[in-house]
Amino acid sequence: MAQVDHSKMANAIRALAMDGVEKAKSGHPGLPMGAADVATVLFTQFLKFDAADPKWPDRDRFILSAGHGSMLLYALLYLTGNKEMTLDQLKNFRQLHSKTPGHPENFHTSGVETTTGPLGQGIATSVGFALAERMLAAEYGDVVDHYTYVLCSDGDLMEGVSHEAMALAGHLKLSKLIFLYDDNGISIDGPLTLADSVDQVARFKAHGWNSEHVDGHDQSAIAASIKRAQASDRPSMIACKTTIGFGAPKKAGTSKAHGEPLGAEELAGAKKALGWDYGPFEVPDDVLTAWRNVGKQGASAHADWTKRFEALPDDKRAEFTRRNDHVRPAAMEDAIRQLKKKLVDEPQTVATRKASELALEALVQVVPEMVIGSADLTPSNNTRTKSAIEVKPGDFKGRYIHYGIREMGMAAAMNGIALHGGFIPAGATFMCFTDYARPAMRISALAQIPVIYIMTHDSIGLGEDGPTHQPVEHLAAMRAMPNMRVFRPADTVETAECWQLAMEKTNGPTMLALSRQNLTPVRTTHHDDNLCAAGGYELIAAKGKAAVSIFASGSEVEIAVAAQKQLADKGIATRVVSVPSLELLLEQPEERQKAIIGDAPIKIAVEAAVRFGWDAVIGHDGTFIGMKGFGSSAPAKELYKLFGITAEAVVEAATSKHNAA
Amino acid sequence: MAQVDHSKMANAIRALAMDGVEKAKSGHPGLPMGAADVATVLFTQFLKFDAADPKWPDRDRFILSAGHGSMLLYALLYLTGNKEMTLDQLKNFRQLHSKTPGHPENFHTSGVETTTGPLGQGIATSVGFALAERMLAAEYGDVVDHYTYVLCSDGDLMEGVSHEAMALAGHLKLSKLIFLYDDNGISIDGPLTLADSVDQVARFKAHGWNSEHVDGHDQSAIAASIKRAQASDRPSMIACKTTIGFGAPKKAGTSKAHGEPLGAEELAGAKKALGWDYGPFEVPDDVLTAWRNVGKQGASAHADWTKRFEALPDDKRAEFTRRNDHVRPAAMEDAIRQLKKKLVDEPQTVATRKASELALEALVQVVPEMVIGSADLTPSNNTRTKSAIEVKPGDFKGRYIHYGIREMGMAAAMNGIALHGGFIPAGATFMCFTDYARPAMRISALAQIPVIYIMTHDSIGLGEDGPTHQPVEHLAAMRAMPNMRVFRPADTVETAECWQLAMEKTNGPTMLALSRQNLTPVRTTHHDDNLCAAGGYELIAAKGKAAVSIFASGSEVEIAVAAQKQLADKGIATRVVSVPSLELLLEQPEERQKAIIGDAPIKIAVEAAVRFGWDAVIGHDGTFIGMKGFGSSAPAKELYKLFGITAEAVVEAATSKHNAA
Repeated sequence: MAQVDHSKMANAIRALAMDGVEKAKSGHPGLPMGAADVATVLFTQFLKFDAADPKWPDRDRFILSAGHGSMLLYALLYLTGNKEMTLDQLKNFRQLHSKTPGHPENFHTSGVETTTGPLGQGIATSVGFALAERMLAAEYGDVVDHYTYVLCSDGDLMEGVSHEAMALAGHLKLSKLIFLYDDNGISIDGPLTLADSVDQVARFKAHGWNSEHVDGHDQSAIAASIKRAQASDRPSMIACKTTIGFGAPKKAGTSKAHGEPLGAEELAGAKKALGWDYGPFEVPDDVLTAWRNVGKQGASAHADWTKRFEALPDDKRAEFTRRNDHVRPAAMEDAIRQLKKKLVDEPQTVATRKASELALEALVQVVPEMVIGSADLTPSNNTRTKSAIEVKPGDFKGRYIHYGIREMGMAAAMNGIALHGGFIPAGATFMCFTDYARPAMRISALAQIPVIYIMTHDSIGLGEDGPTHQPVEHLAAMRAMPNMRVFRPADTVETAECWQLAMEKTNGPTMLALSRQNLTPVRTTHHDDNLCAAGGYELIAAKGKAAVSIFASGSEVEIAVAAQKQLADKGIATRVVSVPSLELLLEQPEERQKAIIGDAPIKIAVEAAVRFGWDAVIGHDGTFIGMKGFGSSAPAKELYKLFGITAEAVVEAATSKHNAA
Repeated sequence: MAQVDHSKMANAIRALAMDGVEKAKSGHPGLPMGAADVATVLFTQFLKFDAADPKWPDRDRFILSAGHGSMLLYALLYLTGNKEMTLDQLKNFRQLHSKTPGHPENFHTSGVETTTGPLGQGIATSVGFALAERMLAAEYGDVVDHYTYVLCSDGDLMEGVSHEAMALAGHLKLSKLIFLYDDNGISIDGPLTLADSVDQVARFKAHGWNSEHVDGHDQSAIAASIKRAQASDRPSMIACKTTIGFGAPKKAGTSKAHGEPLGAEELAGAKKALGWDYGPFEVPDDVLTAWRNVGKQGASAHADWTKRFEALPDDKRAEFTRRNDHVRPAAMEDAIRQLKKKLVDEPQTVATRKASELALEALVQVVPEMVIGSADLTPSNNTRTKSAIEVKPGDFKGRYIHYGIREMGMAAAMNGIALHGGFIPAGATFMCFTDYARPAMRISALAQIPVIYIMTHDSIGLGEDGPTHQPVEHLAAMRAMPNMRVFRPADTVETAECWQLAMEKTNGPTMLALSRQNLTPVRTTHHDDNLCAAGGYELIAAKGKAAVSIFASGSEVEIAVAAQKQLADKGIATRVVSVPSLELLLEQPEERQKAIIGDAPIKIAVEAAVRFGWDAVIGHDGTFIGMKGFGSSAPAKELYKLFGITAEAVVEAATSKHNAA
């Protein structure tokens, strides 16, 4: 490696990025060209990785938060010898079925740690990686000991979530987290000075970070700065002053270099200026060999690690592997079954947030990898189990996290914790504030990350806090998100079942929508099977052929049950279908759906939320008893009356349709 | 006023807050009790207002960002003599139909400037207020000259949006914006130190603010600090060290004082400690009189202002009033009509983001109060008109805002700009990033604020940037939000019509979903009427009785049109319904809906997004041609083929159903 000059190695990244974007006729050359020196220093001198095994658990994590600069990462994966990242992949940048999408996708491309592009997500997710590393090290000792490096941009640091991420990492003293900020002073609209004057180094210091400026094209200065960062007892941010599109004769240092191909002439000029006298996608042998050697540098550290790992007791090693592979403990299923039995034997009229706490108490006994937390609503979210120990600054034995009032920061940190491996994160806030967490929740869904969102206070049932805090559209908004499973259980038993399904979903996130108010048990007979698994099931059958089907979820199931009784008393054959997960029901095979939905001529859905989405079950002519707009501030029972979400309203609608038929 | 001691006046706030929460059996006494001294100094010595006219345009704005402390605001409104805020209202705190909901609602309660409670919204909205004040002053001179004061909490400052708000305000040097931070060191989970270690004063300085600490119970220190803030050439943050629940013997200084009634004993103890020897809701005459006099202090400033205002030229005064009242200029309607004619006469195959630019060019000619901007995507969002002048730090002549990469900060600032009065804000980003802006967009909808969201790159049609940037669930998620109007126009003419409808909606926000890719004109005949006004309309009639109805929005309407032609050629009578606004269509009277939807036995919807919501039009058995999951990174045309969103797919579905019938 020593034979090849740093600049030449950096220029290989620049050239591949320029060529990739040029061939794709789309993409972002500016960041890879600007940050190539920083990345080269990091990869050649610091990053602990083994290109032969991109999944080595103790690798340093490198997160390209500025995901638009994806060609930097793809070029590095190719150069260092990741087997899947061939030159053909670089040539197919941003093309159908390539491993090189516009923005990096961990679920799609080997060597990519997380999905980035939506700005701020990478830096906020990295906090979870760094936290998971420390928590896992607290359990497993020296088989877990790595850094988390992040390359981020102005855009990342302008996003609000950057504040939440920095504050959380600074508070917890995540000293092995190191941000390399590509401080190029350019954004899409033009010079950063058009819209920003923040002193980022001072800002990070105020958040408890070690931070400093460095010349992002001076390799020895960068290396010295990274060494200081490694030695710090705080997370570190290094503001690397760079030139966007470094080398491009006309576009360097301007927004023109950011998000479009350089064009043939400018590209040729840049290669000339860089002294890079090679054709498209051509990397001379000596440079490629030097980079490939970098990809092998970590092999001996990897071998040492394997020795340490194999020296662990068998059960500990097996547990590590099980957790790392997102395999759930065998005891989990039975624990839930026992809980369900108990809840049927000793029924409890409690809120489903309390039912969730009961499920958590059972789960934490058998699932040691659970990491639970709340965005400063612990007493309201019922997330803290009796045995919980807090994670504290510099002390990572605990498994309960006070995330602070940082909903998106929490969700992104959970993404990082799960992606790191070793833990199942579950975090809570009020359901209305899924809006705050949504961009990170979308990453959970898109990037197939198994995290669990405990969202309490799920309707007007929260009462006096009023419409600012009452979700009405949030169920629909979350149900519409692909690969986001939404459950809204109706009582303690359904809550246990939904928790089980959440724990078993290892290819994506789950949201549990839980009530603030107490709910009457509706599941009074024990079933070993998980009745919630198809999204909906017949809770009460009609006597004879059903004239009316009532569909309901969560806190409105008890209303449906009460209405069913009144209708049955009137001689109107009525069944009740509990729908803990509308979208899961709609994903069932058509025949199964039809069996559950049934063919009663009168279909009524009851949910204290907007109708949007329910027509798939009840049809355009079905009756929906729910919300038409925002809620109001008053005690919950009065609100249910005010908005007409009552058994009486269901009975009246069913009766009048029945009489008209 | 001088006769009554400051502490006694502050204690009146404390007592009313304690009593209000106690009677409601719910609410937050801690903040009003802690911040009463700060509020008393502000209201008695600084705040320019006239209780007799809460709508006086040049009043100082007071924004309670920590909306959970609503009893502080309600108590102040009552004490200073706001006519609607009677003692009975305080006694009905958090009850049905009262003027005193759990969190303050501007659309519901006189004297409340904006809707707060979701943390961070108040501070971020305040930036818009302060910006609007400066922009309006740049046009109208000394009839606009007021401060914007904000009382905020730790929660506000922990939320990410606080960073976006601070950075924007600091950059623009909004020196008349003053934050009073109720620095009580307590959050719901316990001491703030559980989750936070940010040095807020240093943090604000890094964002270009003037900031300092003060003892929040020392009235003269607070007053001196506010004076320094007023004199600063930057926005100011004063960290007022307070004791939450000040006066409560056991709960003061703990999270117990935050969010629940004190309880009879603690309440009595607090009143005793404060020397407040009065019954529930009792304010002694001298204290009430002193406060009522504070409510009248601004009357002479108000009278002076009226003189200045009346000295303005008639047309300028009329314009000010028109704009302040959110009345749109008379010329607007005709401008849109002329544009529509031109677009039919000279059809353009352009993206609807470009069509939006054409509409903006027409609108800015006749609507001087438009304030347009982008979250650093100006060249992509097509938001900058030819005549646009930028708003710059300390220079507020311009009407184009570089909001920076701060989607929620932009949305909240737009809320403030609109609520201040005098402007119609329109701001842009990629539609996928509505997720980032969503909490502030919800405030727009809930608080009935007329702002316009220009959301471009509205589907997989954006192509290579890939699934991180491709909205698939966002249309559904936004359509589900009450009072948020979503339009997805199909061509230049529909875009002009949707812009008109957006401009005319003065009781809430509108989102325009616009394509990146070019679209074939589908509106080839001019209509004076706005065909988009009912949400959907028959674009192409069937020859004879329709066997097939194809519904589509935006970029998929051209697909529907192409499919219709192929089906008609096969002799299958097919009509096309353009649905620029699904939820507006579903709000039409049932008969009108049925007429538009029609009774063709085969119903097909085409939209490059998820199906969620469309069953209301096509039914469970209808065919949906769209997305089933996340998108992919590739050129747009290939993605449409990959996901089967083509005229051929529509034709095949229609034909196979037709043949089976």
